[in-house]
Amino acid sequence: MNWTLLADFYELTMLGGYFRLGKLDERSTFDLYFRRAPFQGSFCIAAGLEQVIEWVENLHFDKSDIDYLHGLKIFPPDFLEYLKTFSFRGNLWAVPEGTLVFANEPLIRVDAALPQAQYLETALLADIGFQTLVATKASRVCLAAQGREVIEFGGRRAQGRNGALAASRAAYIGGCVGTSNTLAGKLFGIPVRGTQAHSWIQSFDSELEAFQKYAQVYPANTLLLIDTYNTIEGAKNAIKVALELRKAGFKFLGFRLDSGDLKKLSVEVRRLADEAGLIEAKIFASNELDEWIIQELLLQGAQLDAFGVGTSLVTAKPDAALGVVYKLVAVEKDGKMVPKIKISGNVEKMTNPGIKKIIRFFQQGKLASDVLILDDEIPQPSMTTFDQVHFFKKRILSGAFEEVLQPIFLNGQLVYRSPSLAEIRERTLNQLSLLEPEYKRLMNPEIYWVGLSERLMELKQNLLKQH
Amino acid sequence: MNWTLLADFYELTMLGGYFRLGKLDERSTFDLYFRRAPFQGSFCIAAGLEQVIEWVENLHFDKSDIDYLHGLKIFPPDFLEYLKTFSFRGNLWAVPEGTLVFANEPLIRVDAALPQAQYLETALLADIGFQTLVATKASRVCLAAQGREVIEFGGRRAQGRNGALAASRAAYIGGCVGTSNTLAGKLFGIPVRGTQAHSWIQSFDSELEAFQKYAQVYPANTLLLIDTYNTIEGAKNAIKVALELRKAGFKFLGFRLDSGDLKKLSVEVRRLADEAGLIEAKIFASNELDEWIIQELLLQGAQLDAFGVGTSLVTAKPDAALGVVYKLVAVEKDGKMVPKIKISGNVEKMTNPGIKKIIRFFQQGKLASDVLILDDEIPQPSMTTFDQVHFFKKRILSGAFEEVLQPIFLNGQLVYRSPSLAEIRERTLNQLSLLEPEYKRLMNPEIYWVGLSERLMELKQNLLKQH
Repeated sequence: MNWTLLADFYELTMLGGYFRLGKLDERSTFDLYFRRAPFQGSFCIAAGLEQVIEWVENLHFDKSDIDYLHGLKIFPPDFLEYLKTFSFRGNLWAVPEGTLVFANEPLIRVDAALPQAQYLETALLADIGFQTLVATKASRVCLAAQGREVIEFGGRRAQGRNGALAASRAAYIGGCVGTSNTLAGKLFGIPVRGTQAHSWIQSFDSELEAFQKYAQVYPANTLLLIDTYNTIEGAKNAIKVALELRKAGFKFLGFRLDSGDLKKLSVEVRRLADEAGLIEAKIFASNELDEWIIQELLLQGAQLDAFGVGTSLVTAKPDAALGVVYKLVAVEKDGKMVPKIKISGNVEKMTNPGIKKIIRFFQQGKLASDVLILDDEIPQPSMTTFDQVHFFKKRILSGAFEEVLQPIFLNGQLVYRSPSLAEIRERTLNQLSLLEPEYKRLMNPEIYWVGLSERLMELKQNLLKQH
Repeated sequence: MNWTLLADFYELTMLGGYFRLGKLDERSTFDLYFRRAPFQGSFCIAAGLEQVIEWVENLHFDKSDIDYLHGLKIFPPDFLEYLKTFSFRGNLWAVPEGTLVFANEPLIRVDAALPQAQYLETALLADIGFQTLVATKASRVCLAAQGREVIEFGGRRAQGRNGALAASRAAYIGGCVGTSNTLAGKLFGIPVRGTQAHSWIQSFDSELEAFQKYAQVYPANTLLLIDTYNTIEGAKNAIKVALELRKAGFKFLGFRLDSGDLKKLSVEVRRLADEAGLIEAKIFASNELDEWIIQELLLQGAQLDAFGVGTSLVTAKPDAALGVVYKLVAVEKDGKMVPKIKISGNVEKMTNPGIKKIIRFFQQGKLASDVLILDDEIPQPSMTTFDQVHFFKKRILSGAFEEVLQPIFLNGQLVYRSPSLAEIRERTLNQLSLLEPEYKRLMNPEIYWVGLSERLMELKQNLLKQH
């Protein structure tokens, strides 16, 4: 399917306006960023770039699109002719997927003719916003699980089919080890997981028979759902099957709990399993889990080895959407790029003007602080940086640094080698290992410093004074 | 794209098990329903059936699916051969889209061979759950707007691209008059709306120039976003342009507010517009709206004529997912269908067993109460019905009635004429007009009675006693 029309209609009316008014070649820069980290946290894991690349590469109005727009009776024929040749010919910079990113840092920067840069808005916000949100949620769930396996289980509760696919991909980027979504497994190479539902158990005369039959079909992959009738009785039935499997030379994988008090039941099931000599059998839990519940369960001594997380992960509860915005920060005037600022009654909502880069400083191998600098500034090994709102607050940053935004498209040409999904996931895990624990607390984390360079601070200050 | 693998992986492992164990022809019945209405309300608007029909009709494992499953090294060759011929050959009944539906009523009932009925689970839950949730949210927003226009504006904050499309469709079913999502407009024929963004305003030297240029390009479609710099000054600039348009013989559509206090600003903008003689100009509001905020604004006398609702509508905040489940309620045993019940520690989570129909009674032309009856029961003009949990509570229903579940597939054949999206939307509006106001309160509504027939109550009671 051609997704080119995945754009708010105003992108088209504005495009029509820029066309009519001869503004087709006016250069502009837009930043895509979020104003506040989600879930009470301090960071996000960037995700969704691969889908953005696909969308931008395939951007073209086909005959059916033109016919549809023609039928709306609002656009003149010469504009519709022009649309047939429309494509993205500008530059696009992005934070690579799996990279830590903080509030007010551009995840994407687009330098392009105004109509082209503008037209990307909706698709970029949708793909980057949602996947970044879910990858971040997944990283939090995995942090709470403290190294135990987390599997994404949310397909059935996802927001639309593509929502399910995008969520599976992003959850894997964020650190999940697998998904229940078979199509996501096929399309993205994510490991798939699943055994049997309550309906399997119910379709046999007894739970024991249902377990035995499952083990007969999948002797090397037997993990049993034990809560259909009574979890403890279920555990006893599963142990019988596990011992039969062991006799036959197979390793029993474990038990799945899907209701009841997961702490109390897991301790009891662990005891029963250990008594039966099934030390290696794992206990797998699901049932409306999220990072908070997992943290609490483990704090209380729940004997759980792996978690299936569904609804809260794929719908990124309770946030549901990342507040990503796509703002004009510079526009061409008489051949020169002029920085733009958006003023707001709410000072946190003011944009950082101008064409910017992100410089990330490290100390003792850990992430220390970031600074936003203007595109024509040369980063220095020691830099004085300023708070984004309260300019009197400053910090001097020094040490090793790297530039975070990478070129993706230059003059419309794709110049980026997309990493594999496994590489992206590794990047996430590595990035999180570089972040000090105080930034990773589930709530009230330390806020990571993202300062402005002196030139950028002065530019912002001057633009604010002008208004 | 072939969406056949949009299934939790356990659907495939179970399918493999049913195949191996010779249970391919065992008949079964599954109900898809929700246990509690979302958003503190009392009802849902059914939606998503059209996508279910498409999915079921196209259900087939193609070569790439088989190759993928083969590569997982868990399924034997004879099962993969069988999958090549797999399709849905059973019966599927559904509540038509745009119909009111209440907790514990089957939105879909599947009567089919166990492996076939089971395999539909994930796709059915995903499509019906999400669209029903959004259609319901939309209906609430429209109720709060009291007849004013509501436009769905959420594409950029939706959960995935298909999430955006599904949300646009469902929002229209729920009563919205249009969408900002151009692709949804093209695919579903939903009216599209949109004018200009803040970036349009910023890309000109002054707001007045930006307004004038927009009006020059779209004289018959000029609605102006007035909050880029200062809403009241913006209104004054817009009024200048409106008066110029009037001189040129065009009707100015109105003002759009996107920040600040919408009550205070709308009253002031209305006053300025009226003073300028622009009585017919509308005031359109957006900015993180939902049904609660709209209700409050109108209660306080906000002068608003239309609303753009984005994030909260397309992500169905704060619920994010409808708790839909797909439960086995009957299975074949020795050639006879045996009703099944799922017991739970939580009595509200117990299933209603058996193969059921929904009968809806009317009184004075309004919806009165529903009753679930067994498939082989004949509904009567007067019926004693019982509470689903507390069997001692009963109500006698009488009057005109209709059967709610409609046949969609019979023996795998599509027998349903799909209505147009406009028809579905009309159905919603009509259905809501049949519902008494006490059921439509945003919070603490009266709970609509869905009773059990005497035979169904006795069946449930007996199955509970057996456990």
